[in-house]
Amino acid sequence: MGKDVEVVEQGEFSTKDYHDPPPTPFFYMDELTKWSFYRAVIAEFIATLLFLYITVLTVIGYKSQTDLNLKLDQCGGVGILGIAWAFGGMIFVLVYCTAGISGGHINPAVTFGLFLARKVSLIRALLYMVAQCLGAICGVGLVKAFQKSYYVRYGGGANELAEGYSKGTGLGAEIIGTFVLVYTVFSATDPKRSARDSHVPVLAPLPIGFAVFMVHLATIPITGTGINPARSFGAAVIYNKEKAWDDQWIFWVGPFIGAAIAAAYHQYILRAAALKALGSFRSSSRN
Amino acid sequence: MGKDVEVVEQGEFSTKDYHDPPPTPFFYMDELTKWSFYRAVIAEFIATLLFLYITVLTVIGYKSQTDLNLKLDQCGGVGILGIAWAFGGMIFVLVYCTAGISGGHINPAVTFGLFLARKVSLIRALLYMVAQCLGAICGVGLVKAFQKSYYVRYGGGANELAEGYSKGTGLGAEIIGTFVLVYTVFSATDPKRSARDSHVPVLAPLPIGFAVFMVHLATIPITGTGINPARSFGAAVIYNKEKAWDDQWIFWVGPFIGAAIAAAYHQYILRAAALKALGSFRSSSRN
Amino acid sequence: MGKDVEVVEQGEFSTKDYHDPPPTPFFYMDELTKWSFYRAVIAEFIATLLFLYITVLTVIGYKSQTDLNLKLDQCGGVGILGIAWAFGGMIFVLVYCTAGISGGHINPAVTFGLFLARKVSLIRALLYMVAQCLGAICGVGLVKAFQKSYYVRYGGGANELAEGYSKGTGLGAEIIGTFVLVYTVFSATDPKRSARDSHVPVLAPLPIGFAVFMVHLATIPITGTGINPARSFGAAVIYNKEKAWDDQWIFWVGPFIGAAIAAAYHQYILRAAALKALGSFRSSSRN
Amino acid sequence: MGKDVEVVEQGEFSTKDYHDPPPTPFFYMDELTKWSFYRAVIAEFIATLLFLYITVLTVIGYKSQTDLNLKLDQCGGVGILGIAWAFGGMIFVLVYCTAGISGGHINPAVTFGLFLARKVSLIRALLYMVAQCLGAICGVGLVKAFQKSYYVRYGGGANELAEGYSKGTGLGAEIIGTFVLVYTVFSATDPKRSARDSHVPVLAPLPIGFAVFMVHLATIPITGTGINPARSFGAAVIYNKEKAWDDQWIFWVGPFIGAAIAAAYHQYILRAAALKALGSFRSSSRN
Repeated sequence: MGKDVEVVEQGEFSTKDYHDPPPTPFFYMDELTKWSFYRAVIAEFIATLLFLYITVLTVIGYKSQTDLNLKLDQCGGVGILGIAWAFGGMIFVLVYCTAGISGGHINPAVTFGLFLARKVSLIRALLYMVAQCLGAICGVGLVKAFQKSYYVRYGGGANELAEGYSKGTGLGAEIIGTFVLVYTVFSATDPKRSARDSHVPVLAPLPIGFAVFMVHLATIPITGTGINPARSFGAAVIYNKEKAWDDQWIFWVGPFIGAAIAAAYHQYILRAAALKALGSFRSSSRN
Repeated sequence: MGKDVEVVEQGEFSTKDYHDPPPTPFFYMDELTKWSFYRAVIAEFIATLLFLYITVLTVIGYKSQTDLNLKLDQCGGVGILGIAWAFGGMIFVLVYCTAGISGGHINPAVTFGLFLARKVSLIRALLYMVAQCLGAICGVGLVKAFQKSYYVRYGGGANELAEGYSKGTGLGAEIIGTFVLVYTVFSATDPKRSARDSHVPVLAPLPIGFAVFMVHLATIPITGTGINPARSFGAAVIYNKEKAWDDQWIFWVGPFIGAAIAAAYHQYILRAAALKALGSFRSSSRN
Repeated sequence: MGKDVEVVEQGEFSTKDYHDPPPTPFFYMDELTKWSFYRAVIAEFIATLLFLYITVLTVIGYKSQTDLNLKLDQCGGVGILGIAWAFGGMIFVLVYCTAGISGGHINPAVTFGLFLARKVSLIRALLYMVAQCLGAICGVGLVKAFQKSYYVRYGGGANELAEGYSKGTGLGAEIIGTFVLVYTVFSATDPKRSARDSHVPVLAPLPIGFAVFMVHLATIPITGTGINPARSFGAAVIYNKEKAWDDQWIFWVGPFIGAAIAAAYHQYILRAAALKALGSFRSSSRN
Repeated sequence: MGKDVEVVEQGEFSTKDYHDPPPTPFFYMDELTKWSFYRAVIAEFIATLLFLYITVLTVIGYKSQTDLNLKLDQCGGVGILGIAWAFGGMIFVLVYCTAGISGGHINPAVTFGLFLARKVSLIRALLYMVAQCLGAICGVGLVKAFQKSYYVRYGGGANELAEGYSKGTGLGAEIIGTFVLVYTVFSATDPKRSARDSHVPVLAPLPIGFAVFMVHLATIPITGTGINPARSFGAAVIYNKEKAWDDQWIFWVGPFIGAAIAAAYHQYILRAAALKALGSFRSSSRN
């Protein structure tokens, strides 16, 4: 935390103590021949399916229990706090489970951010996104099958702009929310950090899950919180009402912009890749 | 998270850096002569007793505090969120405490999944299940003794299908819920993972507890959430009402199917044991 | 988790890989000459003061906000769930902060359990308990000073048996609750465990905090949850009403019995010290 | 936890096993020439911006959902428990993300405490505080922009003394609350502790976040909980009402006093720097 520690911790190494992996090529056909690649795609599909199944089921169950017209116990439901826990907690569990298999993205915005930072190839990024969207559709489909009577009545867990908020506000909320998530992902998986603390990749799922939890607490009243295009898309496909489709673009454009800003912030400010490239600011080869 | 890292992390080792233990024999009489075996059975009994005691007491306490007829403070109770925390948090604590003694199953479905994966012998699996069921009965019995006036009035913490849901839905909810739990257990205790991060077994209880927490948030409104046959059985024995017994099969068949699917998913897809056995997909001896 | 792993992990070492510290003598006058001893006593005092200050303030604040007569927002308060978090979360933070200074007891029942297991000397145990009780009194005193108008009206955070529960039930609830806590403390600080996972002592505060959280969720409706005689004593001294004093013995006898059972369970069953002493069960010198 | 362990763990080393960094000079102009310094200032700005954005948005969203006049679902809001989670959880996430870049202060009181302990230079402390205050203003500004209709109506997330509490009470609550936080920060980043457990700096964010969570649970009813002058200042600047400005001094004086006491407690009691300087108490060079 002090300056002296920092000299050791943060910089100015003449001999590097960590390995900065070279950027992943856009096309890396070799991976298509490996079982580990398809396994990763399957793991993303299953993880996104479970994510949507648990979270949308929590949303529908909560709304059915607190329906004012049914005169049930109005305070027994899990509330927005419980819903936020469902989203954050599931991301924690699923990132923990799939980190060693697929990297634990479970979110096209995260995949997009890591693609921009050249951590995954284009082909992997695209296949992950397809798997995530299909998984989300199946997950919400299961909820609809289980909750026939309540699913449509309670909004299907779809992301829509709440009354009284402009499209600009919704877009802004999605951009900043996704920035918080993707910034946390970058911080947790920084190879520089891993060199110092070899067990960080194991601890990373907890702050990533908490980032999702926090953003849900703050923006559920505005957009229902997307910050995950697969989640918004899957819910819209199964719910299939006009309003959900009209607002759908917000939940793709916002998260992708947020992820891009987070990738840029991490690469150009925190890791100072730009300055390093220019070779200007000082002679040290590493910021 | 990137491809290059993955080459190192996920596969294609010519020299293995971890030890895949050989499958446990079905009958392993030698363990019957060891104190550590009986100690493990005792630890499972005590842990399941404490699990049911704390969780069912939370359920009954919540219901007594929010009874509409008693005109008490209707918002003071812990709510479904608190009940879900009780189940998930106790699993976290108890898996942490017993992992080094018995493996920290505390759930016949977990024991069944690990038996299918040949991680425990048949005799150990059976004795664990008996210990878990007896522990659950004693735990709920304590709650009934402490809460005489409220226990029966508030449903005894028994798992029953809620009104308006079919048996198929309840079974499906139990299958997927147990899948989430047992999949997390397999991910957390994978020896391949442990080789990379030697402290994983210590961190494992937290995601396992969170998996239980998440499933309860989602499915309490449908079945009260079993995903643990000992928990459902213990509550049914003490509560002993027809409805709880009628639905009891759901809370055995569902979790066992879910655990079997999770074991298969982990062994045949994620670890690709099947492909390895066939020796087909590629020449590398490890997936 | 499997049997094979267990052979390595749990037993039958001919060469020990950990150091079982010799029992602490009852009187160890040497420690009275060391600053680290007094520093530990001070740390216990401050930690218990902060524990009571934060938790009782949360209790009073919650009750003042949800008073039905004041017609305030009745659902805005933190509820029993929030109160349980306050107790569990503070134990997590304070055990984390003081573990390296005093061992992080913050509870006479924990000190008593560790004394029975011969982990602390008699003189240290007594001074810790005095420091804990004084800290608790000061902590509740601060709350009374800050919350003059509400403190007495809302019961002063004192532990009392709720209406409708017998003394036996209250005592039982305190015994089992303290057993859960002290069992977790023993599991987390077992030197055998530490040998395997050298960072366990750092992770231990989280399950210990969760154990406290869980017990509060379950038994707040019965006794308000003591499981910490200093907490109950401090609140009774400042609140000073007859009922709180009449029930006070429950909150000393119960936790001490629970701690003793947990110490016995850990020493005689899980560590099998008794069997080892008898030298009977098998020839191996270590269970 | 026992005495014997303690001898090894806590003291009396003739050969030190850790490095106590020398005090940071007040003025350390060299750091002004390094990109890592400016990067740290930027990271503090962004982190405080995100902190205020998420937390104040949660506060406003909660109040808009539970407005009694709007006859909405009064139990759906996140409640004080959810607000406390938002503050604590964001500190956890942001300290995790920025610890390696700036030390993860995100709070002028933390910076002040670390400056008093000579862990950061004067120039770094001042620039951090300016960055934190600007970040807080921008964060609350974003909330106002997104929540135009609700922001002013629901108090703008500003810290004010609640009705019925004296200025002394508010000041006391802020002092003790900040003491809890800064004491946890010192405990978590103690180089002596780090020597024993090299991964502590990675685990530190969780107890720090929990400390913030706990203090909010306890003191939201009194002052809304500041314990972070940048948070109080940013909210006051954007809200800009007389009451918020009249009470503003409490949220600077209180946290700075609390941080100073925590620094003194850690340096003079727990680390016994004073005694060491005097060289009196015993001959060992390290307490």
